[in-house]
Amino acid sequence: MSLPTSTKAWVLTQYCTGPLSESENFALREFPIPELKDGEVLVKVQTIGLEPAMRPSYSLEKSYREPTPLNTPLWAFGVGEVVASKSDKLKTGAIAYGLFSMSQYHVAGPETPFLMPVDPKIGKQVLSLFAPPGLAAHVGLFEIGELKKGDTVLVSGAAGATGSIVIQIAKRVGAKKIIGIASKRKLDAVLADGADEAVAYDDDDFEEKLKKATGEDVNLYFENVGGKVLDAALGCMAAYGRIAVCGMISQYDSIGGDRNSFEGIKNIRYILTRRIKMQGYICSQVNDEAVPKAIKDLGAWAHDGSVKAAIYTHPDKGVEHCIKAFQGLLTGANTGKMTVDF
Amino acid sequence: MSLPTSTKAWVLTQYCTGPLSESENFALREFPIPELKDGEVLVKVQTIGLEPAMRPSYSLEKSYREPTPLNTPLWAFGVGEVVASKSDKLKTGAIAYGLFSMSQYHVAGPETPFLMPVDPKIGKQVLSLFAPPGLAAHVGLFEIGELKKGDTVLVSGAAGATGSIVIQIAKRVGAKKIIGIASKRKLDAVLADGADEAVAYDDDDFEEKLKKATGEDVNLYFENVGGKVLDAALGCMAAYGRIAVCGMISQYDSIGGDRNSFEGIKNIRYILTRRIKMQGYICSQVNDEAVPKAIKDLGAWAHDGSVKAAIYTHPDKGVEHCIKAFQGLLTGANTGKMTVDF
Repeated sequence: MSLPTSTKAWVLTQYCTGPLSESENFALREFPIPELKDGEVLVKVQTIGLEPAMRPSYSLEKSYREPTPLNTPLWAFGVGEVVASKSDKLKTGAIAYGLFSMSQYHVAGPETPFLMPVDPKIGKQVLSLFAPPGLAAHVGLFEIGELKKGDTVLVSGAAGATGSIVIQIAKRVGAKKIIGIASKRKLDAVLADGADEAVAYDDDDFEEKLKKATGEDVNLYFENVGGKVLDAALGCMAAYGRIAVCGMISQYDSIGGDRNSFEGIKNIRYILTRRIKMQGYICSQVNDEAVPKAIKDLGAWAHDGSVKAAIYTHPDKGVEHCIKAFQGLLTGANTGKMTVDF
Repeated sequence: MSLPTSTKAWVLTQYCTGPLSESENFALREFPIPELKDGEVLVKVQTIGLEPAMRPSYSLEKSYREPTPLNTPLWAFGVGEVVASKSDKLKTGAIAYGLFSMSQYHVAGPETPFLMPVDPKIGKQVLSLFAPPGLAAHVGLFEIGELKKGDTVLVSGAAGATGSIVIQIAKRVGAKKIIGIASKRKLDAVLADGADEAVAYDDDDFEEKLKKATGEDVNLYFENVGGKVLDAALGCMAAYGRIAVCGMISQYDSIGGDRNSFEGIKNIRYILTRRIKMQGYICSQVNDEAVPKAIKDLGAWAHDGSVKAAIYTHPDKGVEHCIKAFQGLLTGANTGKMTVDF
């Protein structure tokens, strides 16, 4: 097989100032593939994962991420076949995982974050387990949330890629009770993941039902949603509760907009009266050991079957569907990790 | 001198469900003084201190304090003269300090928290230094806020008993910059305590001025006020900032009342995007060493003059003015520790 000399890759052409538009903000461009240096491999991408965490890179607002450079291939976690190798660790024919790009082909090497062979027993789950969903779940639960056996655990966004893994880890560690918050139509998925109760945020009696389900005895709240869900959750915390703030997806559309478009949190006083610790985090920035530990644990748990990452495969195959799939992710089209096969 | 056989003491007659009312929630009652047992002393109270921390005890809402029992003398830190003694440690004539009650006379003994002779060099300052203001300042800054040299420190309620000590301790430890938030008329007191800048929350341009004064570079925010002050402070935090939540005095009169009377916090998203840790605490419950360490440090610093507790003496003397003084405390009538002399 002759090797390709160029690859199609998605780039950002203009920073987003509101809802993103494929035609206005992005373009699929052709890039030459450079010759491999020692230690490098050429990966033919088979599947990429889409991350909510990509969104902050696409605008200029001050955030925990630098804006992505314009007109260069966008970052994306991917799985693919090694089609050429100057590496001792990944030979031609191997299946590799790493922080690649939204491209058909990607040159990876010693500097590529997360580069590793894919364990066949884990397969595409790696795009959730060793990527933001799994890492954020593990690091948030253990390093920030101090999860321990016997805890009552509440999680919002419970049917999402991260929430699903949070439930499974909490179950594995021996939580006393796990309560998931999701939309009405996703409650079954939450229970199927192992939650003891599932409460719908789009139910009229949401707050009352949450108080009843939790008994106001939540030791650890894993926060993905923000807004009225956070407000209700604050009222359900036990004394000395911990809140791991992984995301606040309900509020993202307000960023950069009018201050009044943010939901005001009324129950913040419970931080004081119930002596709660609430902490935001980016899993790669917590400490040097957190992510390697998460990868080790999640790999072992995927092997023994106690944690399983649900993977959603976009119905349209090919690099050209990446941005469309990302837009679907932001509007909740998927249950489980959003991926695109090439 | 013949010893008294009864004492007037304030009791709660009905739990507060909104702003407290002296006539509806409290009564000054006469109680018999029991005979002293071995180890006990009878203290004629000279001065009591009023604490914001009393407020949660006065309503039934679940909190860090059990609701105070109705119709029994209310707790209060006090200084007084020992007028009868069955104790080896506090003889008649000694000046004693401890967790007494809102009464003219109080029987104290081995079970009385904080019971100790008053160091003449500290005097009435003990009601601030070894009481909630001083202890909360020390424990909040060090144990919760992880104060270190070079930090930019922001404190609200900066002219209050706790805020004043926070500024002095931060100065002593070598903070890079200290910014205090108070009402316009109290800004001078904040600067006099050693703050580098003072910002008025009752200024129309409050948020803008706070951003300018802090440079959005606050490493440690010491929170006493809540509401719009907290909201503005959240927008001024640096990455990895710590917020020690000592109090939220602006919200206390809403406790037990209508949910909508609480201020909604719009800037909560910064907890995530700036990876902030926000933690509520009660200084006596942080760990076993925190309070003894605070007492040791604050005693030494009061002796060497680096920390001085401002004491506000209510203009009306006598036990009958306690509730009025407490109401004044909640509405910010005092600068420094609110006390009532009997």
